[in-house]
Amino acid sequence: MPADDFVVTPWHVKGDIDYDKLIKRFGTEGITSELRDRIKRVAGEDHFMLRRGIFFSHRDMNIILDKYEGGGGFFLYTGRGPSGHTHIGHLVPWVFARWLQEKFDVNMYFQITDDEKFYSKPDLTLEDTTKFAYENALDFVALGFNPEKTKIIINTRNIQTLYPIAARVAKKINFSNTKATFGFTNETNIGMIFYTSLQSAPCFIEDKPVLIPLGVDQDPHFRLTRDIAPKIGQQKPALIHNIMIPGLEGPGGKMSASDERGTIYTTDSPEEVRKKINKYAFSGGQQDIEQHRIHGGDPDIDVSYQYLRIFFEPDDDKLRTIYDDYKSGRLLSGELKAILIEKINKFLAVHQEKREKAKSQVEQFLFENK
Amino acid sequence: MPADDFVVTPWHVKGDIDYDKLIKRFGTEGITSELRDRIKRVAGEDHFMLRRGIFFSHRDMNIILDKYEGGGGFFLYTGRGPSGHTHIGHLVPWVFARWLQEKFDVNMYFQITDDEKFYSKPDLTLEDTTKFAYENALDFVALGFNPEKTKIIINTRNIQTLYPIAARVAKKINFSNTKATFGFTNETNIGMIFYTSLQSAPCFIEDKPVLIPLGVDQDPHFRLTRDIAPKIGQQKPALIHNIMIPGLEGPGGKMSASDERGTIYTTDSPEEVRKKINKYAFSGGQQDIEQHRIHGGDPDIDVSYQYLRIFFEPDDDKLRTIYDDYKSGRLLSGELKAILIEKINKFLAVHQEKREKAKSQVEQFLFENK
Repeated sequence: MPADDFVVTPWHVKGDIDYDKLIKRFGTEGITSELRDRIKRVAGEDHFMLRRGIFFSHRDMNIILDKYEGGGGFFLYTGRGPSGHTHIGHLVPWVFARWLQEKFDVNMYFQITDDEKFYSKPDLTLEDTTKFAYENALDFVALGFNPEKTKIIINTRNIQTLYPIAARVAKKINFSNTKATFGFTNETNIGMIFYTSLQSAPCFIEDKPVLIPLGVDQDPHFRLTRDIAPKIGQQKPALIHNIMIPGLEGPGGKMSASDERGTIYTTDSPEEVRKKINKYAFSGGQQDIEQHRIHGGDPDIDVSYQYLRIFFEPDDDKLRTIYDDYKSGRLLSGELKAILIEKINKFLAVHQEKREKAKSQVEQFLFENK
Repeated sequence: MPADDFVVTPWHVKGDIDYDKLIKRFGTEGITSELRDRIKRVAGEDHFMLRRGIFFSHRDMNIILDKYEGGGGFFLYTGRGPSGHTHIGHLVPWVFARWLQEKFDVNMYFQITDDEKFYSKPDLTLEDTTKFAYENALDFVALGFNPEKTKIIINTRNIQTLYPIAARVAKKINFSNTKATFGFTNETNIGMIFYTSLQSAPCFIEDKPVLIPLGVDQDPHFRLTRDIAPKIGQQKPALIHNIMIPGLEGPGGKMSASDERGTIYTTDSPEEVRKKINKYAFSGGQQDIEQHRIHGGDPDIDVSYQYLRIFFEPDDDKLRTIYDDYKSGRLLSGELKAILIEKINKFLAVHQEKREKAKSQVEQFLFENK
């Protein structure tokens, strides 16, 4: 891997991602200020994740807006690979999806891919991943999706519905396609090889166009889906991509549910959050206070600042102040961390309460096979 | 392909099959006279398909008999790929399986792989293969399986039950394994690549050993299953293999449901049977009656004789007489064909009546997902 290079696939994110390069590499389109303005106008409201470039890229977002403005419908779809508890990075596309659902008043499907994580993680059993599927579903429900318009699909639970759709997709994808798209080898297991067709299936669950808010690492699946859609008489899914959320220990990957040190889980206690941030959160500050007061910190590489920007401080003015104060050296790394810790714990206190309530609500969100 | 060579895979049978060579190539065991005697003793009856070497090979049949004699149970499993109507070649393992069920009083699972035929046949839709699945199920039910102990699995209908089992198998099979076993290439579609794990799944549907009577072309699937079984804490399936049933036009393949000329369907009218046999059935006779009276015919390559041997004349004495008369020239090719036509039409008259009745019985045979 050359110094300026990076890897982004659904199962492997490595290196310092250059998102402009990634847009070219994946063949997506950057979100322009025109598109941002259009979304704002049609939705009737702006979203800080768009303003700040957390959602930075898309495919056919304009077509979705055209259809919507023309009076036609669309639906939303996103998902989660349940390899462990939900962490705060996962919440980014979900929170944005919830906002889209509210603004456009559309159906939402949330696919939890317990089979995928079973195939891709040697040490996980299907019981493990199915257990995490239900745990993750609680976090999703806790975010406040419209219960009338939202369905959670769990792959092993809803395979009866998914498989016939996936089969039509699978017939049009050969091993070469999966090698080129995912870098599969002769050693890849056949569950993994087939799996992408199951991630495609919810795209075709309604006879309407679909919009998928998702981490950009998942784009390769839907690149394949978009190639195949016309071959099976279906519309291509539209996508809107968010950046990878860095792990606590800094850039060079994404937050991983299986790396406990680098990860804030939605189930963490305030004390755990405090400890993890203080101990592991990569700092853009100087080596000592004196130096920091003189030279200031670098918020652009500081994980605590980035978490505020990406998720925990939606107020642009407040964020700006933090940025300036940190850069000038007025705000110390410990103080920045304290701000983040407070924000996270405030968020998690509410979230964990809603997550408790979700235990009695989740049933009504589960998709029922017909 | 050298002159003495042949190909036998689940999707391709070609050439003049040397079954002794095939046993070595596949690594199975021939059915010895000792094993035949043992089956006869334990079952309490002989079966002409064993006596005549129609079932010629096995894997672990002795283990099944050991378990049975030791008071332990086993179950039966076989299946059908619904690419068209049932033809008489398909009935061979089913009729034998019915006999096994009767003699051993065990559960029987019949898997109809509508997904497989969709994946492997470019021109068939999933609707086509699912339609044929129900048609084929009627033929199966018509053979008189015990309704209390027999379940028909249709893959798309029962994927809810099959998929979690198949997933455990799929995780242990990589693309290399499928290349080596089935000759898959980079152009093979990912449905086909995954499919073998679904054919494995019924092996593990009960917590007992399974015995699979099947055409030897299906052995590669279960060779893989047998490799994997211990890795997922399961018992290896036992197999008993029948030879390939030749098409009407002679050896060099197997009867194919998609080649109308070479195939007698269970739905054919007496007139169709008469026409097909007279027109297409490969004859071992001489070019004219005079030559035939002098030199006699060759029953060993005569398809009509072979059909009598394989399926339609269970009486050894009667078959012997036909053999001798044909070989000596006493019996002409036309007369031999007439015997077969009468036998087939007699069989089909009864079968088609039972097949009609099966329309109201088939529902109770369908496996219900739990």
